[in-house]
Amino acid sequence: MAPRFSHEFRVRYAECDAQGCVFNAQYLAYFDLAITELWREAFGGYGWMTAEGVDMMVAEASVRYRAPVRFDEWIEISVAVERMGETSMTTAYTVRCDDQPRAEGWLRHVFIDRERFTKQEIPPAVRKGLKPYLEVEEASA
Amino acid sequence: MAPRFSHEFRVRYAECDAQGCVFNAQYLAYFDLAITELWREAFGGYGWMTAEGVDMMVAEASVRYRAPVRFDEWIEISVAVERMGETSMTTAYTVRCDDQPRAEGWLRHVFIDRERFTKQEIPPAVRKGLKPYLEVEEASA
Amino acid sequence: MAPRFSHEFRVRYAECDAQGCVFNAQYLAYFDLAITELWREAFGGYGWMTAEGVDMMVAEASVRYRAPVRFDEWIEISVAVERMGETSMTTAYTVRCDDQPRAEGWLRHVFIDRERFTKQEIPPAVRKGLKPYLEVEEASA
Amino acid sequence: MAPRFSHEFRVRYAECDAQGCVFNAQYLAYFDLAITELWREAFGGYGWMTAEGVDMMVAEASVRYRAPVRFDEWIEISVAVERMGETSMTTAYTVRCDDQPRAEGWLRHVFIDRERFTKQEIPPAVRKGLKPYLEVEEASA
Repeated sequence: MAPRFSHEFRVRYAECDAQGCVFNAQYLAYFDLAITELWREAFGGYGWMTAEGVDMMVAEASVRYRAPVRFDEWIEISVAVERMGETSMTTAYTVRCDDQPRAEGWLRHVFIDRERFTKQEIPPAVRKGLKPYLEVEEASA
Repeated sequence: MAPRFSHEFRVRYAECDAQGCVFNAQYLAYFDLAITELWREAFGGYGWMTAEGVDMMVAEASVRYRAPVRFDEWIEISVAVERMGETSMTTAYTVRCDDQPRAEGWLRHVFIDRERFTKQEIPPAVRKGLKPYLEVEEASA
Repeated sequence: MAPRFSHEFRVRYAECDAQGCVFNAQYLAYFDLAITELWREAFGGYGWMTAEGVDMMVAEASVRYRAPVRFDEWIEISVAVERMGETSMTTAYTVRCDDQPRAEGWLRHVFIDRERFTKQEIPPAVRKGLKPYLEVEEASA
Repeated sequence: MAPRFSHEFRVRYAECDAQGCVFNAQYLAYFDLAITELWREAFGGYGWMTAEGVDMMVAEASVRYRAPVRFDEWIEISVAVERMGETSMTTAYTVRCDDQPRAEGWLRHVFIDRERFTKQEIPPAVRKGLKPYLEVEEASA
């Protein structure tokens, strides 16, 4: 079984809406935060990747909200790489507070050449670094 | 064919990330903006609904990003009600700039009693007001 | 008397905090929005300026909050150029809803060379375009 | 000399603008984050205070930006209580990365009765808890 990476932090006041709960869009910012930390742990970080001329863009995002998260709660997000294709990758996220799932979702990223804005293969160092976090490996796309 | 509601506005600088494009999480905030305006047009607005003791929460969200949107571009979001159940509703969104689709997605909301935080039926006035924007009607929650 | 420029828009749900009011940091984003629209009206816009190799950075910001602004309220921000120096400029903002002042503040921007990140003089076209919005003219940086 | 409280965290991608730097409005959200952590350390936290029926609102904010902060930099914010009056308080902030000051500023908060939205005295427990972080004590306002 692949080890899920996890990252923890506290909900900020500015992230909450008039219902007193984390605003729905904020979860995608949390996913972004978690993947940034996974990148750091797996192969040296997003900055290293862009310095190599490679960037990535979100192509698809999905969130399922199970229970509200409130101001000042302590969040644990776990991430797994669900699928690594040739030029794209899907990562899956679970948001927990007090060991209860509050939301889950996934992002599909496409890797691009930073200058030409064209699709490119996932760099070998990225692929290698993420392998321990990969749940199921497939080919194509 | 149901008339789609649409709302237009300009991309703000603060909504763009270091790639110079609208940050992926921001699209959900745009969807929220569009549904707020649809609510206003369809039955008097979100404020009217909460004054009646009814609120709603996002249960599921999905976005597909087709092409980047940049600072200062003019966005047109169109919304349709894709499905109205007993206590939940799915709305579909298309983001266009220069008449080109840049993203699309949907939200599923659950209606709740504002005090008790329990599911409740979609109020008749909301249901009636949204009918013209409904693409396909179905039953069940 | 200099004509103040003004820009109007509606408060978005995501801009409000758990108190149900616009979050304090959001006012600076509103000021940024207003200056962007003033730039468009005065000399062709921020994009034109950066295409000319000139950018600007906020060096100082100040806000005085008089009364809360709530979700869905209609905001009118007026802007005046308070001072134009050699390389910096101060703009003043008033936020009104229902014709009542809710907040006011100012920003001091420094103009920079977009490539070298060094201070530079305010471009003549910018200076000329903003002149009608200038309250008091002074010299020095 | 009063011990300054400090809080550390990493800059998130979503906090950066198209210049690749932390957006100016975000600094006020950082100040809010720092005061939340100071509250926790000093007397049990913001949630404790609101449970006691007391809330606070920002009445004035000021930021001076010295040098940009970029994505992924590690921020240390230090806070001191600059002044505690009867019903209002001023807190001062310094933002540092790599031990270099990048920005500084202050907030003036007014304490209010949470229900009636009227000014109220700073609760004794808050006053006592914050005393070690107070730089200069004064009376009035």
